[in-house]
Amino acid sequence: MKTHTEYLVFNTEEKIQFVRITERIEEAVEKSGVKDGMVLVNPMHITAAVIVNDNEGGLIQDYIANLQKLVPYDAEYNHNVGEDNAAAHIWRQLMAHQVVLPITDGKLDFGPWEQVFYCEFDGGRRKRVLVKVIGE
Amino acid sequence: MKTHTEYLVFNTEEKIQFVRITERIEEAVEKSGVKDGMVLVNPMHITAAVIVNDNEGGLIQDYIANLQKLVPYDAEYNHNVGEDNAAAHIWRQLMAHQVVLPITDGKLDFGPWEQVFYCEFDGGRRKRVLVKVIGE
Amino acid sequence: MKTHTEYLVFNTEEKIQFVRITERIEEAVEKSGVKDGMVLVNPMHITAAVIVNDNEGGLIQDYIANLQKLVPYDAEYNHNVGEDNAAAHIWRQLMAHQVVLPITDGKLDFGPWEQVFYCEFDGGRRKRVLVKVIGE
Repeated sequence: MKTHTEYLVFNTEEKIQFVRITERIEEAVEKSGVKDGMVLVNPMHITAAVIVNDNEGGLIQDYIANLQKLVPYDAEYNHNVGEDNAAAHIWRQLMAHQVVLPITDGKLDFGPWEQVFYCEFDGGRRKRVLVKVIGE
Repeated sequence: MKTHTEYLVFNTEEKIQFVRITERIEEAVEKSGVKDGMVLVNPMHITAAVIVNDNEGGLIQDYIANLQKLVPYDAEYNHNVGEDNAAAHIWRQLMAHQVVLPITDGKLDFGPWEQVFYCEFDGGRRKRVLVKVIGE
Repeated sequence: MKTHTEYLVFNTEEKIQFVRITERIEEAVEKSGVKDGMVLVNPMHITAAVIVNDNEGGLIQDYIANLQKLVPYDAEYNHNVGEDNAAAHIWRQLMAHQVVLPITDGKLDFGPWEQVFYCEFDGGRRKRVLVKVIGE
């Protein structure tokens, strides 16, 4: 059994921003030498999510608009005492926060449209995403 | 360490449909020979989800009605230029899109009511679900 | 490759309650002897979730208030024939139901604010959460 760990660092310019990271995960898988297994991609901060979805700009706008509609960023929250990011904590759960991706023949075993995104919901600060590969 | 990979194919008659797949996952686990480990069940398309929940028809209706209430399928979306499935992309995130299931003594280590479902949100097309077993 | 399995039991006093379980997961990881790998934390019941988020009481109130706003517990549901917990089934999906956590150097590989919570949405009954560690 092999394992491999990497930490990706993000410091987005926008408060709310989607960053496509498929190639960075592919590189980690290649470095790991794992031919068959899984890779966990997990934000180490709780106002961000990692998701798999379509690389289409209109859809990314739709995601953000619908999160904003369901849980408005500027509404009143108990958490927002000296903070303003309560909605970011909630959004990251609604977006399902983390992914585990399959590796087959040394590559991400993806369908034609699967792309990995880091979803920043409280940017302008340094954030890390852990990539953990296990397999053989 | 052992691994085993299968691809389940779905082509539902309905646009929106839940398909129970517990036995198909159990069969993949049995074929794998893994006695202790995990199985990842991951849609390879981004308008579908795999979930664990109750096999009760009323509840499935409730899931769909509430997704429809929160993010209506026929509302206006930026993504829907030549497409009509933006809501399906969003629904699959709200439903948490994928599962990782525990294997103990060669079987899914489930509570009494846990059942695995493929949730199709844009059906009538060929879709694949990847099943990846790892363990020993 | 090593594996280790534990079953945590919950019987909350409140119908809806968040229970912090970070230390219990850390203890399971330590017992496993796994230095590098992953731990799956999975409710064995379908009206509960396990999440990673901030240990801040105001935020927990915000989570519950927003779930209640999006999918009211006391609304009418098809599932609620002799039951009253349809919303709990839906909430657990919106909260993303389960986590897979990274293990490095024999410990949870967490950022500064990551804490594990069991989220009970239909309490006062015995519930189990499975903890499955794999790695080496």
